[in-house]
Parts: sequence; C-alpha cells; structure tokens
Amino acid sequence: MTDPWATFGTDLHLELRGPRLRAGLMEALREAVRTGRLAPGARLPSSRSLAADLGVARNTVAEAYAELVAEGWLTARQGSGTRVARRAVPRRPPAPAGVPPARGGTAPRGAAPARAGTALPATRPRRPVTATHSLHPGTPDLGSFPRGEWLRAARRALTAAPHEAFGYGDPRGRAELRTVLADYLARARGVHADPGRIVVCSGFVHGLMLLGKVLRARRVRDVAVESYGLDVHWNLLVEAGLRTPALPLDDRGTRTAALDREGAVLITPAHQFPLGGALPPERRAAAVDWARRTGGLILEDDYDGEFRYDRQPVGALQGLDPDRVVYLGTASKSLTPGLRLAWMVLPERLVGEVLAAKGDTDWVCSALDQLTLAEFIASGAYDRHVRGMRLRYRRRRDQLVAALAERAPHIRVSGIAAGLHAVLELPPGTERSVIQAAAWQGLALQGLDRFRHPEAARGHDGLVVGYGTPTDSAWAGALDALCRVLP
Amino acid sequence: MTDPWATFGTDLHLELRGPRLRAGLMEALREAVRTGRLAPGARLPSSRSLAADLGVARNTVAEAYAELVAEGWLTARQGSGTRVARRAVPRRPPAPAGVPPARGGTAPRGAAPARAGTALPATRPRRPVTATHSLHPGTPDLGSFPRGEWLRAARRALTAAPHEAFGYGDPRGRAELRTVLADYLARARGVHADPGRIVVCSGFVHGLMLLGKVLRARRVRDVAVESYGLDVHWNLLVEAGLRTPALPLDDRGTRTAALDREGAVLITPAHQFPLGGALPPERRAAAVDWARRTGGLILEDDYDGEFRYDRQPVGALQGLDPDRVVYLGTASKSLTPGLRLAWMVLPERLVGEVLAAKGDTDWVCSALDQLTLAEFIASGAYDRHVRGMRLRYRRRRDQLVAALAERAPHIRVSGIAAGLHAVLELPPGTERSVIQAAAWQGLALQGLDRFRHPEAARGHDGLVVGYGTPTDSAWAGALDALCRVLP
Repeated sequence: MTDPWATFGTDLHLELRGPRLRAGLMEALREAVRTGRLAPGARLPSSRSLAADLGVARNTVAEAYAELVAEGWLTARQGSGTRVARRAVPRRPPAPAGVPPARGGTAPRGAAPARAGTALPATRPRRPVTATHSLHPGTPDLGSFPRGEWLRAARRALTAAPHEAFGYGDPRGRAELRTVLADYLARARGVHADPGRIVVCSGFVHGLMLLGKVLRARRVRDVAVESYGLDVHWNLLVEAGLRTPALPLDDRGTRTAALDREGAVLITPAHQFPLGGALPPERRAAAVDWARRTGGLILEDDYDGEFRYDRQPVGALQGLDPDRVVYLGTASKSLTPGLRLAWMVLPERLVGEVLAAKGDTDWVCSALDQLTLAEFIASGAYDRHVRGMRLRYRRRRDQLVAALAERAPHIRVSGIAAGLHAVLELPPGTERSVIQAAAWQGLALQGLDRFRHPEAARGHDGLVVGYGTPTDSAWAGALDALCRVLP
Repeated sequence: MTDPWATFGTDLHLELRGPRLRAGLMEALREAVRTGRLAPGARLPSSRSLAADLGVARNTVAEAYAELVAEGWLTARQGSGTRVARRAVPRRPPAPAGVPPARGGTAPRGAAPARAGTALPATRPRRPVTATHSLHPGTPDLGSFPRGEWLRAARRALTAAPHEAFGYGDPRGRAELRTVLADYLARARGVHADPGRIVVCSGFVHGLMLLGKVLRARRVRDVAVESYGLDVHWNLLVEAGLRTPALPLDDRGTRTAALDREGAVLITPAHQFPLGGALPPERRAAAVDWARRTGGLILEDDYDGEFRYDRQPVGALQGLDPDRVVYLGTASKSLTPGLRLAWMVLPERLVGEVLAAKGDTDWVCSALDQLTLAEFIASGAYDRHVRGMRLRYRRRRDQLVAALAERAPHIRVSGIAAGLHAVLELPPGTERSVIQAAAWQGLALQGLDRFRHPEAARGHDGLVVGYGTPTDSAWAGALDALCRVLP
C-alpha cells in the first residue's frame, strides 16, 4: 500500500455513509487520481483489505475497482494487482482565457446588459454603483408574465397532446401552433397567413439568420436596412455574406423610395425601432411597388405590433403583398423573451428554401412550449394578456410624458404612439454624459447613437427609454431616477 | 360607385355581424383588393353611403378607410375621394418551388422519417402501405414522457422563479439548471462538472455546431470520427470547414490508438452509435493520452449513457481529463427530444470561445423548460424516470433477444448491453431487401450501412433496431412484424 492510502482510507471512511457507498467510493478514487494524491502507477490495496478498512462489503470495492478499470482510471493485471493508470503528462495548457462573467439580461432588441458599468468608458478608474433600475429598451415587463394562465394552458396542452408531439417534429414547427397563429395574425395584424407558410423559430434573430442564408444562396448581395436599428441584426446579415446599406431617413421616416437594386430590405413598418414612428402609407406602398418591380423581398420586422395606444394598430405591410413580404413576429415582447418563440410568414416559394437553410437537424424550439402557446392563444388568454399589457404600458407612457412635461419640459419626447419605448431628445453634446451620470446613480440608459447605422448621418442627441422594462414595483423609482439625470 | 360595389356591399352586409365589425370590414376590403375584385384606382363609396348600405355607424367605415389608407391599401386625396391604391404590376414570379411535404418524426440520431416510403428506391412504381410501426433508432418511447410529473415540476419552478428568469438570459443557460446538472452528472456519469463550465444548448447538434466553429477558429483542420455514426454530425463539421477522417474499427471497437495529427475526435465511448459496444479501457486511455500528448480535444457524445442494463453504467470519459474532453449530454433520449435541451461540460479554457461562437444573440433555449428541468432533476423525478425507463427498455431488450432466439435463431444480435437499440446481423446481401420488405408491410427499419462513414470499409449486412421507439402498446406488434420480415 502506498503512502497516500493511510489518510485516504480514513477520509473515505468518514465520507462513505448512506446508500451511495459505491458511487461515493468511485468518485473519491477519481478525485484522488485527478488531484495527484494517487500517483500514476500507484498500486491500490486489494479489494478485501480496503473493504475491511472501510467496513463495507468486499463486492462494493471490487465493483468500484472494475468500473474504474472500465473507465480507464485504473488498470488491473494478473499478478500486478490494481494500479492507477499511467497517463501521458498533459501538455502545458495555454494561459486560461477564463470564464467570462455571467452576462445576464442582455437583450437583442436594445442590447447591452442592464448593468451600469457597461455604459462607461473603460478608462474610468472608479466603478459605478450597481444598476438598480434599467430603462433599456427591448424587454417587456417580466413581472407581468402570466404564470398562472400559462401553467393552466400547459396543463391542457400537454394533457391533450398525442404521443408524437414529444418527438422530433416538423421543421416548420408544431402544426397546432401554426394553425392558431395563422388565425391570430390575420385577425390581429391583417397578415395574410396560412399554416403551411409559417415557420416557427427561436426568436427574430433565428429567423433573420435563416433568411440571410436563403438570400445569399439566391445570390443577393445587398439587404437595405434602416438608418437606425440594431447592429446585431446588421451583423447577422453581414455574417451571412450580405452587405447592409442604409436607407436614408427624414422627418417622416425611412425613405423607401430610395430602394434600388438591393435584393431585399429589412424594415420595421408598424413602429420603427428605435425612433418609434409608423411608416407612412405612401412609403409602405413605395416599398411594395419596388418589390414588385424588381423582384426584391421585404423583411417586415413586426416586433411589437400589438402595442399601439391612441388608435388601432397599423396592420402589417405583409397583407399588401404576401408574395413579396416576409412577416416576422415574436412572443418576446408580447409575452416573454424567455420563451424563445417567434414566427415567419413566408411567400410560398420561399418555404422550401427556408426549411433547407434550417436543415434537417435545426430543431431548436421546444415542442412543449409550442403546444402551450398554441393553447394559450386559442383559449383567448393571449388576447387578454395583450389587452392588459397594452393598458399597462399606455399608463406608463402617459406617466412618462406627464413627468417629463412637469420636470423636464424642455425635453422633446417622440415615438410615443406605440410600443414599449420612447425617444427623448437631448441638448446637443449631452447624450454620453447623461448616460454616464445615470449609470453612476444606478440607472441603466441607452443613447440613440448606439442604434445608428455606420453610414447614416449623425442625428440629434437622445435617449431610447424602454418604459416597458421595469416591473410595476420598480417603475416609479426608475421614472424618478430618469427625471433626475436629465439636463 | 364602380360596378363591383353592387355585390360587394351586399356580401359584406351578410358577413358583418357581431362585435368585430370594423376589423371584418377591413379584412373584406383587403381581400377584395388582393383578389382584384376592387381594381387599383377604383373609387370607394363615401363612408356615409357605405355605412348606410351596411347599416353600421359612419365612424366605423371612416375608421376602416383611414386604417387602410395608413396601411397603404387605399389612398385618400382631397377632392378625389378614397380609392384603391395603384400598385406596380407584380413581376411574374418564378415557378413556385411549392411547399415540401410535412416531415414528421425525423430524428437526428437515427434520422429519416418514420414512413415506410423513405426506405424505397425512388423508381419503385407502387407505393407501400403507410408505416404502422417504426423501429428506427434514435427516439425514446414518446408515450412514456412523464406528463404529470413534468407539469408538477413546471408549476413549482415557474411559481418560484424570479422575474428576471423570464428575460434574455445568461448565454450559458439558466444557472438553476447548470447547478443541478453539475451535481447530477458527477453523481450519475462520473463527470467532473462545474456550473460555470456548463453551456446549455438546444440539442447535441447545436452543441456540435458551436464546437465546430470553435475548432475552426482555432485552425483545426481534421476532426476524427468513428467508422459508424450519423452523417448529420459529420456534415455539420464539414459545413464548419472541417474534414472528418474516420478512425479504423475492429472487433473491440474504435481504434483510438490510430489518432494522430487530428485536432479533435468525436466519439461515443459509453455506447458506440450504432454498433453498441463500450470503448474498452485501454482505448479510452489511448484517447486521453493522445489528447494530452498532442493538445487535441475529445468530444464525448454521451447520448444515452443512463441506459445500461446488466451492470452499472460506464462512467464518462470526461472524468479522466476534464481539460481535454468536452462532455455532451442530452435530455432527448432520457426524457424527450421535444424539449430541445442538451448540455456541454467544457474545459475552462473553451468556455469563452464557445460563448463567442454562440453569439450574444444565440439564445435558443426556453427559459421555462430550463427552469422546469432543473426542478425535475432536483426533485428526484428525473432519477425515478430514468430508473423506470431503464427497467422498461431492459424488458424490451430481453423480449427482443428472446423473440429472435425463438423465431430467428440464425440472426446474431449485438450491442444489447445498453441503450435503446440493438444491431441484428443479416445474411450477406439481404440488408436492402429486408428493409424494403418491411416497408411494404408497414414496418420502418434502418440498415447498418446508412450509418457507415464513406471512408470506412463495408461491414456485414445488418439492421439497427430501435426497440425504444414504439410506445408500449405498439411494441408487441412491432416486434412481431420484425420477426416476420427477417430472412
């Protein structure tokens, strides 16, 4: 018996109580080998003597040894006993890159983690206080996720589902969900939908990634984008091998009449992100005309189309020409990003190509959640939830506008007819300092400039304020903090 | 008023009952424009006269018109009234590719839909009967998904979750899940795990895709694979820009001693897929030695490690050297593929690179399911389920072996110590005809040859029989059908 066994046996004795004797013994032996406490080549005590030491059945030890031989930890040879396997000496690993810090709450729409630190230049010596409020756009009020209603829908859906629902499914997504989505989108968003042309995906980004592949395969080079938007979307298209020239912008919104030889355009017609306006009718028409004239494709990002406050929602552009427009919707704003469910309504000719891009193995969406969402929509719970949230967000919008009118009347606020965020115009040259000041007071804000396309002309200084983001209990504090940091 | 209005008004009148008057009117108008019933440029009746025709409030019509103008369907100009918008004539679309038929039940592990037709050559003139049984490998018994237990876990998990759990989360996956996984994998599979080095993904394929990117970025050229496996996995690596040379195979399994200058190797040590053997201890050791000597990486696919019948499961290779082995596990076989949840345990130095490959926006896993699975494991329900399924699968395995011994004693069966499938050796030259005969009798089977690497020498004829696939009620029938088609 080699030296280490003296204490090893004693330690083991203390650890090995209860029913998991053998597993515990195996793990202790593995750990001893791993840490070097038992050196390569070291001979182990016989199973009989270790069993006696530990006061356990000999079989327990013998089985543990046999398992560890099978796993390659130990070797057993006739006449030589059981030994720790000899291993090549590990090559010196490169300096560890280390585990990056956990990145919580980073939102693709409005991006960047909700921590104060991230808004600061890296050279700043001291660290700001931890953010206690976030008004980053792109996240709904997570405190409002209807847990009870969702669980009831899950119970109904999972109880009723056929066995095959739990298997590898249709790459378009569960038929139950596509069927209710077709009905819902027609009713709520004026989308010309058909379950066969709907493809469920794990988020807008997943859908855009697939469309990028399809466009590239079709030899498209340029996908026009808006002057303001999300760089993660542009980057995705660039990674797919596409260029993303920016369409010009004026007071009335994106100038779709400037569309030319691009193969496709990505737009947010119902509620421009982040500026907040609806694309005017003649510009919607110009986009469709361009698509018909040139064979181009319109990618319609309808990320928060359900939330419009002072009039009915503007219907989806897709209805104007379902053969020219891909409609992209998501549950991330209307329900929760944690679901990872979104959907595309495709022109019929693209369905096969999108599924080919998805690949036979690109099944990323939980069947359980799809079934539950289908039931949630079909039962009317989704409509009720959206109605309730619309009232709640409108109230917050009104409170934001009222608070600004009272406490910062010189700040112009825009983009307030819809959605979960507003744009606050700041005095020239103050955007960065306001964000920094906010960060130091524990309020996470995002400026307008971070959403500007590199080709687009610099606009006015501003903040994109996500008033949907705080929970109800945090909202008043966040609003107060905002008013305090405004210049 | 143009001609179409005569009947349009009447039709509308019939359709427009109930509370959704305005929405119904809008959809009817859109449809009329879409179908060409209202031609571009056609002038609409005044809101007053249409309202009178329909017996509805004038405001309802006026609002509908305004919305449709906003959406671009109609135009309204002072003095010219409301007209159907003029649109460019659509370019003649290319011949539609058409919607591919729904592809149900295609399983990445064992692939190809469970339909009889797919096993037939395309030239066969008549069509076989629809498959009523499938013995394709790669799918667990979907009828055994523990719906009640799962729903109870969902209720506990969703009730207890903090609000932030429903947001955009840590790209590694929910901390709750990673924490219980670390404990479970150490206990059940001998994995040296740490929550910080676990990355949750939407399936083995998703994990492999990320690892392919990482390896390519590290300038790895070759990833050795086994002589038998899944082409979808090889293809994924090839798409990432890697080559996939096959390791030689002999009676004892994959010859890991042949590893040379490859940058990585993908293996199934606990239960070779599809041949079914466990990698012998000295070959496990050889793989680890190779990795240490050359700095190569081992990708350990532990797809069904929980299911071993005649002795305890062979522990994971990863435990031998957590710095050289990436462990990949999944809930797809132990629970259900519908969950789309799998996990990687990474060497610390790779965590950052894998997250970089995942991208800030590659969040594909449902937070709700992750929370539920964490609770399901922590409560002991997962252990109970795995134990129950192990008994059930072992019983089927025994029944398969017994039925073959009685009804087809000349057929050698192997790979039966573990997992959800067995390999049946067939007389030379009969593999294809057996599969075809089975298809014509409604039994979906897969041959061994479809799992052979293009570089690997042709082995014996055989079937890979997934005895886990049928539900309990279908099992006896499937087994009987199998025995009837064997030569």
